Amino acid sequence: MVRVLVAGAAGRMGQQIVRTVHSMPELELAGAFEAPGHPAIGRDLGEVCGLGPIGVPLSAGLESVLDKGEVLIDFTFHSASIGFARLAARRGLAMVVGTTGLSADEEAELARLAQESFPCVHAANMAVGVNVLFKLVEKTARILGNAYDVEILELHHRLKKDAPSGTAITLGRMAARGLERNFDEVAVRERNGIIGARTDAEIGIQAIRGGDIVGEHTVYFVGQGERLELTHKASSRDNFARGAVRAAAWVKGRPKGMYSMFDVLGLND
Amino acid sequence: MVRVLVAGAAGRMGQQIVRTVHSMPELELAGAFEAPGHPAIGRDLGEVCGLGPIGVPLSAGLESVLDKGEVLIDFTFHSASIGFARLAARRGLAMVVGTTGLSADEEAELARLAQESFPCVHAANMAVGVNVLFKLVEKTARILGNAYDVEILELHHRLKKDAPSGTAITLGRMAARGLERNFDEVAVRERNGIIGARTDAEIGIQAIRGGDIVGEHTVYFVGQGERLELTHKASSRDNFARGAVRAAAWVKGRPKGMYSMFDVLGLND
Amino acid sequence: MVRVLVAGAAGRMGQQIVRTVHSMPELELAGAFEAPGHPAIGRDLGEVCGLGPIGVPLSAGLESVLDKGEVLIDFTFHSASIGFARLAARRGLAMVVGTTGLSADEEAELARLAQESFPCVHAANMAVGVNVLFKLVEKTARILGNAYDVEILELHHRLKKDAPSGTAITLGRMAARGLERNFDEVAVRERNGIIGARTDAEIGIQAIRGGDIVGEHTVYFVGQGERLELTHKASSRDNFARGAVRAAAWVKGRPKGMYSMFDVLGLND
Amino acid sequence: MVRVLVAGAAGRMGQQIVRTVHSMPELELAGAFEAPGHPAIGRDLGEVCGLGPIGVPLSAGLESVLDKGEVLIDFTFHSASIGFARLAARRGLAMVVGTTGLSADEEAELARLAQESFPCVHAANMAVGVNVLFKLVEKTARILGNAYDVEILELHHRLKKDAPSGTAITLGRMAARGLERNFDEVAVRERNGIIGARTDAEIGIQAIRGGDIVGEHTVYFVGQGERLELTHKASSRDNFARGAVRAAAWVKGRPKGMYSMFDVLGLND
Repeated sequence: MVRVLVAGAAGRMGQQIVRTVHSMPELELAGAFEAPGHPAIGRDLGEVCGLGPIGVPLSAGLESVLDKGEVLIDFTFHSASIGFARLAARRGLAMVVGTTGLSADEEAELARLAQESFPCVHAANMAVGVNVLFKLVEKTARILGNAYDVEILELHHRLKKDAPSGTAITLGRMAARGLERNFDEVAVRERNGIIGARTDAEIGIQAIRGGDIVGEHTVYFVGQGERLELTHKASSRDNFARGAVRAAAWVKGRPKGMYSMFDVLGLND
Repeated sequence: MVRVLVAGAAGRMGQQIVRTVHSMPELELAGAFEAPGHPAIGRDLGEVCGLGPIGVPLSAGLESVLDKGEVLIDFTFHSASIGFARLAARRGLAMVVGTTGLSADEEAELARLAQESFPCVHAANMAVGVNVLFKLVEKTARILGNAYDVEILELHHRLKKDAPSGTAITLGRMAARGLERNFDEVAVRERNGIIGARTDAEIGIQAIRGGDIVGEHTVYFVGQGERLELTHKASSRDNFARGAVRAAAWVKGRPKGMYSMFDVLGLND
Repeated sequence: MVRVLVAGAAGRMGQQIVRTVHSMPELELAGAFEAPGHPAIGRDLGEVCGLGPIGVPLSAGLESVLDKGEVLIDFTFHSASIGFARLAARRGLAMVVGTTGLSADEEAELARLAQESFPCVHAANMAVGVNVLFKLVEKTARILGNAYDVEILELHHRLKKDAPSGTAITLGRMAARGLERNFDEVAVRERNGIIGARTDAEIGIQAIRGGDIVGEHTVYFVGQGERLELTHKASSRDNFARGAVRAAAWVKGRPKGMYSMFDVLGLND
Repeated sequence: MVRVLVAGAAGRMGQQIVRTVHSMPELELAGAFEAPGHPAIGRDLGEVCGLGPIGVPLSAGLESVLDKGEVLIDFTFHSASIGFARLAARRGLAMVVGTTGLSADEEAELARLAQESFPCVHAANMAVGVNVLFKLVEKTARILGNAYDVEILELHHRLKKDAPSGTAITLGRMAARGLERNFDEVAVRERNGIIGARTDAEIGIQAIRGGDIVGEHTVYFVGQGERLELTHKASSRDNFARGAVRAAAWVKGRPKGMYSMFDVLGLND
């Protein structure tokens, strides 16, 4: 059994993590907290998260539950995460950090704290399938080499504001790494007009937008007479929580230091 | 039985048409020609086209075979096609014209000659499946209306010089017609950077390039909780010949005038 | 404005319909009911359905709200639906019936009541996209004819107990209708072992099962050198409610009689 | 430069290999042969294979060219292949054997000869992309484990006599290996009727047949809220030749022994 603490447990992502932890027999929801002053503090966490009463209250701040847990899952806010890491460092509490937007200084401090004091999994996208796809793409690019053209397609809902998606860009970087190319030099994000024949090294990225598509990514490796298409399709947003919980089960008892989802999933062989 | 003449029969497209006509029991290859002076004139057409001897020689010019046929299939060159049309008009010979690049004047002359003197099927893309897709897209857009976002994806080989493909643009025009929008105002061909939420009216078109992909087109109609995807995939280039031959079988005996592949395929109901 | 009544409004499907009606500006939620004795009777319907208070109570039985509405949406139980239809017949109340499992006698009574007294839309699957696909498949099969092989693939979640899905079978029937074949004679649902070459007339149906896939259906029309693939993908179960609400907006003021979703969607031209 | 010999060079597969070898700058077509008595012996090989003259004649039997080459590519007939292997063994000539249908005894003799005397690549399917997919599937199954349902879909042309395809079965075996299951116990090849919920361990395999589809295979890994789809699409049959030629370039200078395409492609790390 791994005793898990959840930061920001009354928020949208926090609630999702609470529900996922609660559903896993090998994990115990040891404590959960919000910032002091949050209106739901003291309420039964299960009621906050739509599970019905589970006998764990929402606490005020990490310190109030620090003794109870072995792993802290944190998807809150960059400055808050650094504060939690300082506390975790004092106690050797393992961490799973899904928070995005850390500054370079914050990234460096988190890494230093982890190296010195506790095991920490940190990744911008914790969905299991996406991380598996990252590695498959790198590996496939390395094997197939320059005889196959690499192209990326992503589909997202109509409200998404950026294109291509961050995940599509990471897929492009993984392919470029496998091919020993500089992604920023070879990425082609627009094709419109008389563009001429495709260059050998380019990696095209194209974006479809519509409806409520959660997120789909395909990497094409197109050769002469054959192609491989590697696709990930998300149909709900709970994959981030599932990945985080998988990381929590994995990180307990690891040596100090920083880990990625590739480590969690055994993808760094 | 329909007696068919083939223009430019020693060229790449002409040979394909000869082979397709030859394979159809309801059609008879009545004659075939190249411009006078072509080195293969007088040879057995089947040998020219890789069929083995079939007893039909390659003739010199349309006039030498004009009496023998009922329908002329022509995929040659815009100025040549107009010359053939003038001859066809004198004899009431039906035509199937797949030639592209006619000037506005040539288009007008072809239409006038056909209105006055013979039935003529004329289309830039004679592939059956593509023309069916055109109509399905218009119809689907009309039924689904503004609650579904329309997006288009096309995939072609690495040597294709323009993007998006002409067929993708026609698909967009068909969708726009069904939605009563002006395609040129709503087409979005580039998505790169902070693009903001998708607008209601836009029709996105994106292009993948790689390997030897002959041509694939998908039109997405993406709503809330569901989507339709209508896809055409070409795996060889003989679909143009098949469509032309289907048009030849259809056009014999029709009233004078211009027809499209939609007429041939019964898609104008 | 169309004044809508909702039967079984506290049930899973009823709640979904209430939420969908509530979200549509052209519809007014005029009343909603459960069987007398239901524990939620008297509560605010918005609270029952997770919308917050909306000022419409959950009533006891259709009679208590019969005067208030113009169209009744009913996804309850076959015997209950017939009872509602008898009441609707007395008042000329239009109906949208998504209830499944009606016996032949019940189907006949519903049809007779509608012919005599009120307009009624009845369909087993009210999702807009699926009904559009039904028609596209019939039309495409008719156009393409026997030169294209028709195959059907469906994907559903791991808990689905029957295969192929009812929707896949209806797709097969629509294709068979377009091809003037007897579906039950040509359907091939198993391919395993030395099966020999595909026969010309057969329509293959294959089923994938896994995870939480809501439902995907593709109809392939595979020719020589090209194919069409027509796909519907559902990503949530609210499409039934959306279709029902679209039917409710359409059916008000129609002549007496039975209608299908094809009528609602203008697909019977 | 690798000096290549081609067995059965006037046959369909042999010609394809000749053309592929000829197109590769790092390979030299050192010799090619048919059985003594073949009518094309003595003709220029390029003319036989549609390349125009290349200055290499078609020879009579392996012995007549044995001195000239470093690697023999052989896609002929099982008993012929064993004869070539005995000759190769005497000279330490490397071999690439794509011949299928070897008896158990022949397989054993080939393996023994190779262990003792020469490096030999032997595989039933030499297409690069398919072999890459085999390994990706095993790896993905191992990483994702039992929380993802594995399903396989294959599409082939209407003339294919067996279902599912041998490649689909191998994909299933690779997935089963990654999951530590016995494929023959968990493969489900038919779904028809009231089949009940999917079992956890089963691996479904379904087959679509139509038109001239060369061959497409998809392996689905379907979890809760996400899935991976790994697809290979062949659009022509020259991939076997390309894989064989890649093997020939790789095998020269290797230690004696038997190798698979996984070795050639570096997939056994």
